[in-house]
Amino acid sequence: MIKNQKREKSSKPIIGITMGDPAGIGPEVVVKAVTDREVREICHPLVIGSEQVILTAAKRFLRKTNVRKLVWVEEVKKSTADINVIVSSSLDPSKLKMGKITPLSGKMAADSVFCAAQFALSGQTDALVTAPLSKKGLHLAGYDFPGHTELLAYLTAAERYAMMFVSDECKIVLVTTHLSLAEVSPHLSKKLILKKLMVTHEAMQRYFGIKKPEIGVCALNPHGGEEGIFGNEERKYILPAVKSANRLGIKAQGPFPADTIYSPRLVKNFDCILAMYHDQGLIPLKMKGLGEAVNLTIGLPIIRTSPDFGTALDIAGKGVADPRGMINAILLAVKLIGKVRSQI
Amino acid sequence: MIKNQKREKSSKPIIGITMGDPAGIGPEVVVKAVTDREVREICHPLVIGSEQVILTAAKRFLRKTNVRKLVWVEEVKKSTADINVIVSSSLDPSKLKMGKITPLSGKMAADSVFCAAQFALSGQTDALVTAPLSKKGLHLAGYDFPGHTELLAYLTAAERYAMMFVSDECKIVLVTTHLSLAEVSPHLSKKLILKKLMVTHEAMQRYFGIKKPEIGVCALNPHGGEEGIFGNEERKYILPAVKSANRLGIKAQGPFPADTIYSPRLVKNFDCILAMYHDQGLIPLKMKGLGEAVNLTIGLPIIRTSPDFGTALDIAGKGVADPRGMINAILLAVKLIGKVRSQI
Repeated sequence: MIKNQKREKSSKPIIGITMGDPAGIGPEVVVKAVTDREVREICHPLVIGSEQVILTAAKRFLRKTNVRKLVWVEEVKKSTADINVIVSSSLDPSKLKMGKITPLSGKMAADSVFCAAQFALSGQTDALVTAPLSKKGLHLAGYDFPGHTELLAYLTAAERYAMMFVSDECKIVLVTTHLSLAEVSPHLSKKLILKKLMVTHEAMQRYFGIKKPEIGVCALNPHGGEEGIFGNEERKYILPAVKSANRLGIKAQGPFPADTIYSPRLVKNFDCILAMYHDQGLIPLKMKGLGEAVNLTIGLPIIRTSPDFGTALDIAGKGVADPRGMINAILLAVKLIGKVRSQI
Repeated sequence: MIKNQKREKSSKPIIGITMGDPAGIGPEVVVKAVTDREVREICHPLVIGSEQVILTAAKRFLRKTNVRKLVWVEEVKKSTADINVIVSSSLDPSKLKMGKITPLSGKMAADSVFCAAQFALSGQTDALVTAPLSKKGLHLAGYDFPGHTELLAYLTAAERYAMMFVSDECKIVLVTTHLSLAEVSPHLSKKLILKKLMVTHEAMQRYFGIKKPEIGVCALNPHGGEEGIFGNEERKYILPAVKSANRLGIKAQGPFPADTIYSPRLVKNFDCILAMYHDQGLIPLKMKGLGEAVNLTIGLPIIRTSPDFGTALDIAGKGVADPRGMINAILLAVKLIGKVRSQI
């Protein structure tokens, strides 16, 4: 019995967790999530960020000061501290202001991601879970990435990758992510959609063990363009991509009008939905209740998840942020580690 | 007692009902809906279309042949037939093919709308309920309207009008309707959004008796453009329109990111949601289950409703079409007639 417990303990994965933008709710949900009992039972959470930011958040939101600064990732396995931190940024946080995104807050958030990605890529951590950062902060700090997904794809040199949202009810993958609506159509191509279908197919196998996943593909235009009257992206790009995917053995179907594919009757036919743009995927997802879905980047050489909410500047620093989404992101990461390990 | 019954009977409104595109499920759901017990109890339904198309549908889908051709609208009040029809089109329907939209099917559908709109405008009928037609059919027949809404606005010379969807849970109004996604942004303007806010405000008062309706306004871009990084339509058009509306005493709020406004926490704050494009309004609506919501054209001098489904060519002629949406559209029309009458 004692032996078993030991073995279980030693096989618990290490989850690297970024602190997010320190002007938002990131540090708050991080300190709440890493001290969650369920989380600590199944993994070793390790925060990567500014020691001072995390210490301040722990005092303010948890009244806990047992925050330990580690030098090596492995130390987390033996640490008994409530919160373990590896310092990714030694910038002075005293000029940060809650609720205000600045070049400083953006730089600290980015440093946390750079460092945490390195730990995951080198295998020191088993997965990466990111707290919300602000795209504006990234821009102000001089990093021209629309979000975590593209930044991590760059850092891990991933060629085919996508943003997947995972909830109990459904899985949704986005073809385009953080683009203005006007830029969506010019960005679509048969090649891009086919790439996303391929990476979705692979991820459904790798992470969820579904050998022949059924992928439902959304149209771009209302009523699917109604045979070209309201746009022809369906005929030019989406249908050809679906057909090419079929020839590769991928069970993709569509395009279906986006307002019907999510209806209760149709959506249950699919293991995953491929949406052409952000809100086409996120509106249905968030209708089920904010904070329940987890964002999973597929196609990376590392496992990376995050909650589906943003920096929530309006409530930053107030202590009311709900860590449930962050906890769900950690739990999913641990589950996926188990799934991937079982395939080796 | 007998007197009361008489008065009730005589005050039952007359609802003009178009047959829709005869190649689709229109005639089927119409004959099913007008013979529905609940419908007949509260109104006099009158079909406006091709006698032969309706007779064929009645035989095929109901095994009823008691279809009566009327000359005057008023006759419907005394008719005991199962189905009453006024002929709007004497075109020969023998060349129609179920499931195939042609110039003929489009012309017959359009004729039905022209005729029914006249009856409503002249006050012979109390409301207009339309069965689904195909935009492609309209185009093939030479009518350059994206759908019923624009066609009826033209026929009734309405200056400010909009498409509203009404379900038990929410009301949603669209700023743009049947446009390709790429055309949405170029069509937006402060003036257009303000117009839609004004007509929404008036309709919520007129039809639903809400004196100071709270209108939640969607952003166009993901995350509401995140301060201009993903598009600036929010700052250029939407926010200025909301502010102008506020100055006119309209309680509009927003813009809110479209993936959060429909979340359970936020959506309950509003009497109505203003969506910038078709799928932004229709995805949330149809997730609740197809056929439950009713499409209401607001801003017209007549009351006009329709079901929220299309011609459903794939199941046309099979007898499996569910008339529930059509019945709901008739029931809502009757309810609105009562509401408007009570204000006179």
